[in-house]
This record gives sequence, C-alpha cells and structure tokens, in this order.
Amino acid sequence: MVRVGVIGGGQLARMMIPAAVNLGIDLRVLAEADGMSAQLAATAVGDYHDVDVVLAFAKEVDVVTFDHEHVPQDVLRALVDAGIPVHPGPDALLYAQDKLLMRQKLSDLGLPVPVWARVETEADLQAFLDANGGHAVVKTPRGGYDGKGVRVVSAAHEASDWFTVLAEHGAGDALLVEELVDFRRELAQLSARRPSGELVLWPVVESIQRDGVCAEVIAPAPGFAIRIADVAAQIATDVATGLGVTGVFAVELFETADDRLLVNELAMRPHNSGHWTQDGSTTSQFEQHLRAVLDLPLGATGCTEPHTVMVNILGGPREGALSDRYPGAMSAHPTAKIHNYGKDPRPGRKVGHVNASGTELDVVAYEARAAAAFLQD
Amino acid sequence: MVRVGVIGGGQLARMMIPAAVNLGIDLRVLAEADGMSAQLAATAVGDYHDVDVVLAFAKEVDVVTFDHEHVPQDVLRALVDAGIPVHPGPDALLYAQDKLLMRQKLSDLGLPVPVWARVETEADLQAFLDANGGHAVVKTPRGGYDGKGVRVVSAAHEASDWFTVLAEHGAGDALLVEELVDFRRELAQLSARRPSGELVLWPVVESIQRDGVCAEVIAPAPGFAIRIADVAAQIATDVATGLGVTGVFAVELFETADDRLLVNELAMRPHNSGHWTQDGSTTSQFEQHLRAVLDLPLGATGCTEPHTVMVNILGGPREGALSDRYPGAMSAHPTAKIHNYGKDPRPGRKVGHVNASGTELDVVAYEARAAAAFLQD
Repeated sequence: MVRVGVIGGGQLARMMIPAAVNLGIDLRVLAEADGMSAQLAATAVGDYHDVDVVLAFAKEVDVVTFDHEHVPQDVLRALVDAGIPVHPGPDALLYAQDKLLMRQKLSDLGLPVPVWARVETEADLQAFLDANGGHAVVKTPRGGYDGKGVRVVSAAHEASDWFTVLAEHGAGDALLVEELVDFRRELAQLSARRPSGELVLWPVVESIQRDGVCAEVIAPAPGFAIRIADVAAQIATDVATGLGVTGVFAVELFETADDRLLVNELAMRPHNSGHWTQDGSTTSQFEQHLRAVLDLPLGATGCTEPHTVMVNILGGPREGALSDRYPGAMSAHPTAKIHNYGKDPRPGRKVGHVNASGTELDVVAYEARAAAAFLQD
Repeated sequence: MVRVGVIGGGQLARMMIPAAVNLGIDLRVLAEADGMSAQLAATAVGDYHDVDVVLAFAKEVDVVTFDHEHVPQDVLRALVDAGIPVHPGPDALLYAQDKLLMRQKLSDLGLPVPVWARVETEADLQAFLDANGGHAVVKTPRGGYDGKGVRVVSAAHEASDWFTVLAEHGAGDALLVEELVDFRRELAQLSARRPSGELVLWPVVESIQRDGVCAEVIAPAPGFAIRIADVAAQIATDVATGLGVTGVFAVELFETADDRLLVNELAMRPHNSGHWTQDGSTTSQFEQHLRAVLDLPLGATGCTEPHTVMVNILGGPREGALSDRYPGAMSAHPTAKIHNYGKDPRPGRKVGHVNASGTELDVVAYEARAAAAFLQD
C-alpha cells in the first residue's frame, strides 16, 4: 500500500483521511500531541522541530507532506538529504514561510502585487506611509512575533512594539509593509501541481473574511468575468512554476476597485478557501493533494452543482460538543454537509465548517449560513 | 464524541469511515481478523458468534450496527437484553437472515413477490416446477449450505444435494423455490429509516448483474416512469414499517415484462446498489446509515449530477495491487472516483468500484466502465 506521511495533526491532515480511505492510501500522521484533530491517522507523536523525530517518521513513508507550513528549513533539508521525497519541497516552502521573500520573489517574477517595502525602522515605515496615503498594512514576515502578525496602521509608532522585538533579534530582520489595497472583494485561486509538471485549477472563488478570519467561501465567485479568470489562472501558473510548488496550493487575491488582481497571500497546502471542493467539485482538494504529492494524474476540478457555499464554524460561547446541536441543524437543513474537526470548541477557534450546494445561489448560501449559525451560536 | 460500533470489518464498515470522520463520530469496528478492509477503525478483533466478545465490544459504544447480516439471533438478543441499542434490531434482521421467513412476511403484508413455495422434498419441488412452466429458482433460506445458495433448475433432482443436506439437518428444514421471473431488468430502491420513524428514499436505480454478482448500477434508473417510482417507494415504505427496519436498507426489485415490480431480495445495511451515492447524491448511504442508527435527522437524497454510474472492480488475473494501475486509469479518466477496499485482489472478489457522474449518461457510463476495466483487467 502506498504510504503518505503528513507532518502535523490538524484539521487539514484529518480531512485527508476520507480521501486516503477511498483511494486505499496508507496515511500516516506525525501529530504534535495525543488527541489532535487527525488522531485516527496518527502513527507518531513528536516535535516537528526535531530532525531525529521527523527523520524516523519519514523513513516509514513514500512521501512527506504537511498539515502546515511551519517545519523548519533545516528539518526539511535533512529529509531531502536522506533521499525522502518532500512535497512541497523546502525551496518552495521558503516563500510560504517568509512573506518578505515571497513579496520579493513575486515582484521578480513580474506578478501583480500591492505596493510593498521592507522596513527595518519606524522611520522607514513612516516614509512608506507618507508615500502611500497615510495608511498601510504591516506584517511580520514569519509567524511568532504576534498571534496574527498583521496590523493596519496610520502612524509608524503603532508598530513600535514589533520594531522593539526586531531590534532584540539583531541586525538584518525587517517587517513587511504593504499599501492598504482598495479592493472590491477577495478571491482565491486553488490549484494543484504534480512534481512531473501537470497543473490543474479549480474555479476561482470569492472569500469573505470576518475579523481577519475566513468566514465564508462562494464557489464559483459570482459574476466572475472570463478575462479575470484567465488572469487568475495565469498568476497561479506563474506562481507554481516560478516558485516550484508541488501539491495543492492557494493564491489569495484582491480584486481591486479598478478591476485588477493583486496577489495577497500564498498557502502551499490545502486551504480553507478550498473546503467547498469536498462536496462541490469532482475532486476534493484533499484527494487532489494526495494524488499530487504521489505524482499521480490529477482529478477533474469542475463543479458538481452550479453553486457551493462554505461557511466556517467557530467555537462560541455555547457549552457542549458540536454534535449536541446536530438534531436541530440536520432537521432544518437536510442538504447541509457538516464537517466537524473533532476539536474542543474554544471561542473563536475554527472547529468545523458547513458546505451546501445547489442550483440557486441564494438558497445555497442561506442553507450553509443558517446551518453553520445553528451549530455555532 | 458519539460512538457507533460496527460488527464486521468488511468494505461496508470501511466506507463508513469517511462519513464518521466528516461528522466527528467515533466509529469502532469489531473485525473478524487483523488486516480487514476496515482495519483503520478496528478497535477489537474477535468472533461475532461469541456473545461475550460482542457484549464486551458493545459496552464501549452508544449503538451497534453491522457490516453484514450474519450475527446470530442469540447474540443480537443478548445485546438488546443488555440495554444496548441495536439497529437494525433482531426482529428485523431475522427476515434478512432467512429467505423463507422473508417471503412469508412479504406475502402476509400483501407485497408483490414472485410465486414461491416452501419445499421439503424433491416431490414438492417437482410439483412446483410442473405448476410453473418447468423452470424455477431454488434458494437455501440461510447461507451455509452452498457458496451462493441460489440455483436455477428445470428438474427436481438438480437440487438433490441440497435436499440430502436438509435431511441431515432433521425435520422442519426446507428450501425456498420461486418462479423464474420474466424480468425486463433489475431495479433497487435504497432507503433509510430512523428508529423514531423518519424515512427517506433515494431515486430508484437499475442494477446489472453478471454471473450472479452486481456488476454495474445506473442512477437514477433510465426511463423510469413516475408511476413505477411511486410503486417502488410504497414497497420500500411497507417493508420498512412492516418489518421494523432501521438504518439504510435496499429492496432489490424485478421490473417484469408486463410492467409490474416484484420484490427480489432485501438487504438491511448499506448495499452495493447504493455505492453511487458516495459521489452522486447529497447524502451518501454510509453517512445516512450513521445518522439513521444514531436517530439523527436524515440527509437529502437528491442527485448532485443528472447521472451517476457505478461499476464494480473484481480481482482479476493480473498481478499486483490495484494502485499499481492508478497512473493509467487516472490519466485517462480524470472524472472517475476510485474506491479501493484495500483487499487482496483474488479473482472474482469485489476489491473496489468506480463512480462517474455527469450530464450525459453515455459519457458517464463509458468513463465508469473504462476506468473500472483498466483497474480490473
């Protein structure tokens, strides 16, 4: 049986299990702890920062892939040096791990990005603000400085705490600053690429964020012009080939008020903007990811129904397990497809999502939103 | 987490795993041996004929259900006596376990069945043959006498070996004999019923048998008249309520040359004729079965695409694992959904199936058949 190793035991690893069962793939997960979301497929528990732990795990599988993008480069390089196939590989993941490197690379490739700069001091940031209308988005290039790492500022001192941390890290570190894009809406282009080159794209979707967290995805993006679809496809193709991405990846895009597309973020793994594919596309992103990292031919990416809407379920104030609310939700919404991550529903935490599909977007959106609200609130 | 216990580790238990992962249900399987198809969810290995083994397993779950219908009545009764919910229950399963009891019950309920008789001797059988055109189908009421237990005969002596076995079993045993129905095609009505009464029906499908084994299912059944659909729905409803069935069940039907429907067989579990629902219906039969046995509201049973065709994959003469043939099959058939049971592909054994869906039945049928043939031959 073909063996795929996944580093990380979160919900993305969990959602690979159904695809692995269907295709007869032996999915093995290196989880951070017992009782993680992907517990059923966890064959090892350990720290993914530890080269020895990861190497021992990787030697039992045919290919290594990921639930997240946080595995350190030295660990990734050790896997490659040991001759273990890793998808996406370290050279590609570098750009998902460091937003400054990503912005530089996309600019080098001539891809459309927001105006951006690398800023080492408050003075640098203030200069950027002065040149760009007085507002900007400051980002820590790597996770770890801050829970979110993204902040909208109107004055340089609003990021002074981050500059203080930078100074403590020594010379050479910097923040990323980007123009505050006047966007009409956010879109995402989900794609998959095999090591041998085949690339497929799903229809572009609209994603709706709430408090900086993905709340809802509408697939395909309503009223999405063919011309813009071609642009999104070309961007994803250039990203994949330019950065050497393998597996499923998502390009988050801004659609600007003046009809341009700008690359916002990249994710080199199955992504929240692609959860709709589980119930709305011929091939789910999780099956496709397994096919891609195994260098198997990719599946069809069309929609099975005209519209699918995905709504996230966050942990809320209500007590009890998500499944306690199944009777009411299922009774009122028989077309809703519930995905439960098996997580403790702490407030604000993504604990599941609902997909609904059908021919009338209004009805589909209502069903998905109402079922998710019932489960959440 | 809600816990569902499944007795039997075959492919039906295996295919409940994806639904359980999606819904956050703790699925626990009592497998007959190590390495069964449902290995990933196997939490116990033991003999389902052993009351103590089954009771110990059942005490760790909220409800017990089945991968097959062979659990002895005394074991089922012991579970009920211990206060453990069992779905379907022993009173219903009795009719799936004994074809003579089933025929008698269906006749008592006034449901349309082939002309049948209980025969204890060759003379009884010959009298039935003489009265019914000289041909008939003889069946052993329970598994065990013969691998298949179904034989078409034109003379009573063709079943003499079975009568010899009957005589060895002592008085009271009998065979079932049925008229050889002049059918146009075989249909199946898949349904699900909750203990609290809710009943849902999927569209009627056509099933095509080859050498007595289901080879292909076309959903919905082509050219299926509304009147006949109503009849099939009424039959399934009468069977469910009359026999007290809970969970997913299938009624296999003959569509006769003179436009009647006759009940052929019953299956009180997810069924091969319902595998198309995994990729072609809003709710798969495996998700529905879990919902039904947990007495949760049932999901929508509509088709996500106009046509879905399911083709079984049997173990063939070719050596090697099914997955060895993925590159060719996936490359030529990107819309094919492959379901691999993780079984050793011995000749004639069901080792997987392929579903294909779409708007043109000819295309869908070609894709499913060609992909399955590639994987099988």
